[in-house]
Amino acid sequence: MIILGLDPSLSCTGWGVIRSEGSRLSHVANGQVPTDAKAPIAQRLHRLHDAVAALITTYAPDRVGIEEVFVNKNPQSTLKLAQARGAVLAACGGAGVPVREHAARLVKKAVVGTGAAEKAQVQAMLKILLPGADVAGADAADALAVAIADAHQAG
Amino acid sequence: MIILGLDPSLSCTGWGVIRSEGSRLSHVANGQVPTDAKAPIAQRLHRLHDAVAALITTYAPDRVGIEEVFVNKNPQSTLKLAQARGAVLAACGGAGVPVREHAARLVKKAVVGTGAAEKAQVQAMLKILLPGADVAGADAADALAVAIADAHQAG
Repeated sequence: MIILGLDPSLSCTGWGVIRSEGSRLSHVANGQVPTDAKAPIAQRLHRLHDAVAALITTYAPDRVGIEEVFVNKNPQSTLKLAQARGAVLAACGGAGVPVREHAARLVKKAVVGTGAAEKAQVQAMLKILLPGADVAGADAADALAVAIADAHQAG
Repeated sequence: MIILGLDPSLSCTGWGVIRSEGSRLSHVANGQVPTDAKAPIAQRLHRLHDAVAALITTYAPDRVGIEEVFVNKNPQSTLKLAQARGAVLAACGGAGVPVREHAARLVKKAVVGTGAAEKAQVQAMLKILLPGADVAGADAADALAVAIADAHQAG
């Protein structure tokens, strides 16, 4: 079972691919898709859409995991995030891959054991759960964590 | 100059294509893209993305006009709307067509002459401004109004 985890945001979308065999997890790949802050928003969204479509073609995931939207106190931030998410989800829909959403607390709980974990704790646990993974950055780490949560929920 | 107006929403996205020659406007086509409320959201977003990509291929607009997001009091509604918008904008970005946003008040003002116009007034004026247009529904009417506002702003 191949799982693609996504952490969408307009400025930089993180992704992580893991393999889940029974209770064994292994790292396949991870990365980040930055977009040009000076480009028109439609072009930035297109870049995210196409990058995710290409990831699905490359890794042929059986499932996609994505973090549930955190409705920000700042409506403009929520708007940007939701638009990025819309572009990315459309790419998943185009490929016909099932998508599941995971609450941020449950993602942390799946990785660290507590929903109140700090980012640094999540990243430290990733090194243990996915030995050998060279994590591209904080967004890629979040995406790998979502993929792990998705694997746990399936198991 | 061909202008595509869009009124995105997850349940039904309206679209309208007009031709603008100097101060003359004429209707080209309009329609609505409903999505299946029972389908997974990723598939619904994909449908919107693909429908808009197909419209751009068919009508080769020089510009796209879209209404500025109205940040709803209900965060879940804003989220759905913004995701639909993200899928639709990604399609515009993929085609390289420039997109402009127009505030709802200015759209009404462009069509009726006042930003406080009712929906019924907007629809009545559309019949005068775009004679012969057979409007597919309320969402298509909104999309045609956005296209007219875009033409006015350009002129």
